[in-house]
Amino acid sequence: MVESQDQGPYYQLNDTKNPDLLRERQSATFDVEELTQFVFGGPNSYFNVNRRRQLTRLAYAHPVHDTHLPIEYLDADDYYSVLIRKSFIAIKEAERYGITDRKLLGWFVSVFTNGRFMFGLHTSMFLHTLETMASDEQQEKFLPLARSFQIIGTYAQTELGHGSNLQRLETEAVFDINTDTFVLNTPTITATKFWPGALGRSTNYVLLMAQLFTPDRNHPAGLQMFFVQIRDLNTHEPLPGVELGEISTRFGHEVGDNGYLRLHNVRIPRNHMLMKLAYVDEQGTFHRLGDPRLLYGTMLATRVNLCAYFSILLARAITIAMRYSAVRRQGQNPNGKETLILDYPLQQEKLVPCIATNYAFFYAFIKLENLRREILDSDTILFELLPELHAVSSGLKAYMSSIGERFSQTCRVACGGHGYLVASGIKGLNNQLDAGCTYEGDNSVLYQQTARYLLKVMQQLDEVSEMETESSIKFLYSTTTPPATIINLDDYCRLFECRSQMLLKSMSNRLSESEASTYNKFSKNSIELVHISKAFIETVVLRAFYDGVRKASEHKSFGPVFEQLFHVFAIHTLRNSATDFIRLKLLTADQIYQLETFNLPDMYARLRPNLISLVDAFDFHDNELNSCLGRYDGQVYEALMERARLNPTNRHKVHPVWKSIKQETKSKL
Amino acid sequence: MVESQDQGPYYQLNDTKNPDLLRERQSATFDVEELTQFVFGGPNSYFNVNRRRQLTRLAYAHPVHDTHLPIEYLDADDYYSVLIRKSFIAIKEAERYGITDRKLLGWFVSVFTNGRFMFGLHTSMFLHTLETMASDEQQEKFLPLARSFQIIGTYAQTELGHGSNLQRLETEAVFDINTDTFVLNTPTITATKFWPGALGRSTNYVLLMAQLFTPDRNHPAGLQMFFVQIRDLNTHEPLPGVELGEISTRFGHEVGDNGYLRLHNVRIPRNHMLMKLAYVDEQGTFHRLGDPRLLYGTMLATRVNLCAYFSILLARAITIAMRYSAVRRQGQNPNGKETLILDYPLQQEKLVPCIATNYAFFYAFIKLENLRREILDSDTILFELLPELHAVSSGLKAYMSSIGERFSQTCRVACGGHGYLVASGIKGLNNQLDAGCTYEGDNSVLYQQTARYLLKVMQQLDEVSEMETESSIKFLYSTTTPPATIINLDDYCRLFECRSQMLLKSMSNRLSESEASTYNKFSKNSIELVHISKAFIETVVLRAFYDGVRKASEHKSFGPVFEQLFHVFAIHTLRNSATDFIRLKLLTADQIYQLETFNLPDMYARLRPNLISLVDAFDFHDNELNSCLGRYDGQVYEALMERARLNPTNRHKVHPVWKSIKQETKSKL
Repeated sequence: MVESQDQGPYYQLNDTKNPDLLRERQSATFDVEELTQFVFGGPNSYFNVNRRRQLTRLAYAHPVHDTHLPIEYLDADDYYSVLIRKSFIAIKEAERYGITDRKLLGWFVSVFTNGRFMFGLHTSMFLHTLETMASDEQQEKFLPLARSFQIIGTYAQTELGHGSNLQRLETEAVFDINTDTFVLNTPTITATKFWPGALGRSTNYVLLMAQLFTPDRNHPAGLQMFFVQIRDLNTHEPLPGVELGEISTRFGHEVGDNGYLRLHNVRIPRNHMLMKLAYVDEQGTFHRLGDPRLLYGTMLATRVNLCAYFSILLARAITIAMRYSAVRRQGQNPNGKETLILDYPLQQEKLVPCIATNYAFFYAFIKLENLRREILDSDTILFELLPELHAVSSGLKAYMSSIGERFSQTCRVACGGHGYLVASGIKGLNNQLDAGCTYEGDNSVLYQQTARYLLKVMQQLDEVSEMETESSIKFLYSTTTPPATIINLDDYCRLFECRSQMLLKSMSNRLSESEASTYNKFSKNSIELVHISKAFIETVVLRAFYDGVRKASEHKSFGPVFEQLFHVFAIHTLRNSATDFIRLKLLTADQIYQLETFNLPDMYARLRPNLISLVDAFDFHDNELNSCLGRYDGQVYEALMERARLNPTNRHKVHPVWKSIKQETKSKL
Repeated sequence: MVESQDQGPYYQLNDTKNPDLLRERQSATFDVEELTQFVFGGPNSYFNVNRRRQLTRLAYAHPVHDTHLPIEYLDADDYYSVLIRKSFIAIKEAERYGITDRKLLGWFVSVFTNGRFMFGLHTSMFLHTLETMASDEQQEKFLPLARSFQIIGTYAQTELGHGSNLQRLETEAVFDINTDTFVLNTPTITATKFWPGALGRSTNYVLLMAQLFTPDRNHPAGLQMFFVQIRDLNTHEPLPGVELGEISTRFGHEVGDNGYLRLHNVRIPRNHMLMKLAYVDEQGTFHRLGDPRLLYGTMLATRVNLCAYFSILLARAITIAMRYSAVRRQGQNPNGKETLILDYPLQQEKLVPCIATNYAFFYAFIKLENLRREILDSDTILFELLPELHAVSSGLKAYMSSIGERFSQTCRVACGGHGYLVASGIKGLNNQLDAGCTYEGDNSVLYQQTARYLLKVMQQLDEVSEMETESSIKFLYSTTTPPATIINLDDYCRLFECRSQMLLKSMSNRLSESEASTYNKFSKNSIELVHISKAFIETVVLRAFYDGVRKASEHKSFGPVFEQLFHVFAIHTLRNSATDFIRLKLLTADQIYQLETFNLPDMYARLRPNLISLVDAFDFHDNELNSCLGRYDGQVYEALMERARLNPTNRHKVHPVWKSIKQETKSKL
């Protein structure tokens, strides 16, 4: 069992070795731990920081972490071996400590494996899909094996020629009435399953998404999910008819196990099609059961979790960049001293909007998670709210990954050349956020889905009478008067809500006036539709952050700091869509110029003494950051030199290629 | 000698295997080769495409290229060995073919080594610095050795704790009168030379930037350049007192040779300080000679070349993304067919502004190169024009790298998941452009230097009477009337020029009214100063492109296409700074909305049939792109599968780690 000690912060003020960084920490106007507890604390909080600290300490205490070089120095094969071994140890350790709650377990194995748990798709999508889509009988048979890792699976959906467009998947499962089996094939090169995680070298089962053909070979009965063994459980060798391997090298997924899979007449028993929502009988007749909307559950939960994940990735990047900026000196001030780069307004302009946005992200995620819990975790799923959850989670996933990608890149630039080292930690975070712009739905596609939902809402505005107070679309039902000036924080929210409403109304009118087909209308206006979705998501994030600021206002020490962050987020977001606000006569160009040129830098100055404590409050362990630049103690240069000296190529006094070149030169003389 | 055949295009229309791509090529309204020759052709053109084709063909014909796996699959040591070997072969081959012109030689060795020539700093900065800063006597001694690669050098400037702020470099050279030598030391950890290219494992000499102390040990005489041997020429071992190695892993510089260097009481003869501009006599007295501005020559030339380099990198990224978009199908249209993704307005919104900007970049570079040639290649350097060259090249370097980074990332996203493979080629290009935002001057710092120059110009507006017609600052001297509507292309130029002029005037006034110190004034306004610099650079790029469009207008077939590209670049650039144009009453918010929402997509539609031919005209060889997605023939999926199957990890039917895990499990039973 997890001990109840070790719930306190990882570091104390006097762990700080760099004097500049110490000065920053001493200048804070609030207590970091108090803020951490406010945002991430409490057993009912999603983040449950105290428990998290216990788990993190347990994970890092294991001796296996001292047995290998920094992972950037491992070659592809060693890298993979280390992570597979760590993943298995993590599972055993979690068992030993009795960590069974799925979220806590997920954290533990992730921390244990340096964020690279090899069986993440097994414990999330594979298990979850079995639990929701397998029949009771199937669950009884498959789940114990899967939960005990005797079989390890992944989710094989994406094909080489087909991404998010499921309807066009080519992999086929043809029912053979004579043998009571399905015959599985990837009939073309573009049908090759391509990208599934852990498929290339690790899993022995897949859940295969395939077009079902029954009873007629020529007419598909739609997409179904099949439970398919691909490797021998004893030898780990691919089974007959199964061709598989690792795809070519990816950035960001250095982990190295995205696979490809080709199937040649592989047969599986009829009862290996997941049968909770549909089944095929012995005569080959296809039957539907249950509500197919249940299918969305896994996808929705995944998307919500991604929003937490992206917020954490960005929080790591800004922690690193901010701390480094409080250590690094550059340029000369009139006193003849070098300036701390965090004192440059241009550096603040890069980093302060990022930290403000990051706090906004956490509050937006918390709101989304509450909505998810309300809809999916109740005794009966609230189907009528699913479309809202789908729209908001799609839009937020797109927004957070793309803004996160952008800001993490800015953090890289803010760290100058050293930010470019893998040892900075930032480039890896940037790659992960970049990947997030594409997986689980391309951002452009997701934004359009949000837009479709919003336009449907606009067409039904008169019909609905009651509405949840917390609903993200509530403002669309009221007539908000735009504020003439910005005095209260709520004025920003109202400005954004007016803008969103006006954009939606005008688009809705334009679409209903148009005579074109729905497809053509949407296609022709797709660029604007994406813009309108973003505008809506901005209201959601701003309103969620506003609620957080109101709660914080009860805390004298950091209440005002939250207000300052809110100002920064609101103005920064607003200026990036200035044309909207001006064109819709919500603000004048002069007002925006004032906000951007005077209010924003003024907020930077007010926030200046608290910038380090604001990132300290994210409460990362140094091992999680794995960054020479972002260490809590500020010993940046020592860490960079140490990491350089560890580079395995430096074991050669003279690199072998030079020895042979020198040899060749000599023998020619 | 280079043969005079083989100057034609690498590919013909019927090399296209993908039918969609073929249709795209057949739909073009102009001849690709004609456009290539117009932009990149002619022996006096910087790009000299015909000669380039000859060199490229020669380079790729060498059998060494068939001796290794795709470089993404090589481990760090093999990767390095392959590139060192290829670099030496490239030098020999160039000698054999009699390629001596430095630019042509640079192309040849770069193409030969897949863009990773290991001695690039030797042939550029090392040689160039010796040629400009070594005395005649020193040149006679050092240059023949360097030119014949008997010694290989690099440029050791950046230190662990100090980047572009040269004044604070800590490495020191103390003159010792007794032995007539300099004693070299890196006295602190932050003084460690860190990052220099090829230093870690490859070079045997460096040009060391160090603080000179003479005659007084306590008062530095300023920064000087020293010619220092670091490795034994026979054994390649580091010399006594020299500690060096590779720094830790970088993204983008997979090449793997950025080094660190620590010096402990290393002595070099007095005459190994480069002595063209200053020298130390036997008594230890320091003397200046010549114009110290000569020092800028290398830096300026490097920066100008970077602008060509960045344009080429971006051109590769957009070539890949555009071709892939004409092969990839996704989503369903009402005919039940999958849609070519290039037909989606959202995909056009991602890619068309990029291709337009890329053409603008090439014209901006050509204008800059002409300015450089005029100033630096004349018999006597035109010192009075150096500040303009410095300002424009600094600003353009910053602009092109940051916009290039952004667009190449958009190209990545536009390719979906497959864009994330190293085999897409794009992520590597994005990393190179990202690195370009920092090296040779951090972009924020460079923009500020441009701003300083512009503000100086503003203060001297009344003083100057004559001006070069081609000058980039000419418009600041005239009173441009803003056009009320946009009818001609020149109207865009005038709008941008008015904006730049107005921003500069208002800032100039604000600064002269302020009572603060110059340092404080600049610091306080630094965020706006960077913005003003960008606005100026945009006028430069737009005007350069305008000149290109005017020249193109003589060509009936592609003249109108150039006009369309110009519209796209102008509107896209304008909308990103919409607040400026509205606030300065140059355009209304409604006008900008119209341009963005209607004119821009209209241009996309007009350009649609020519999009593939516009990237084909960049004339890249498939090996240069090294991309499964961007191949000329369009065989995308075949290439992806082939590359996946080549992954060396797939040589294991069962990965070794699984063999040992299965073994352990068995032995436990």
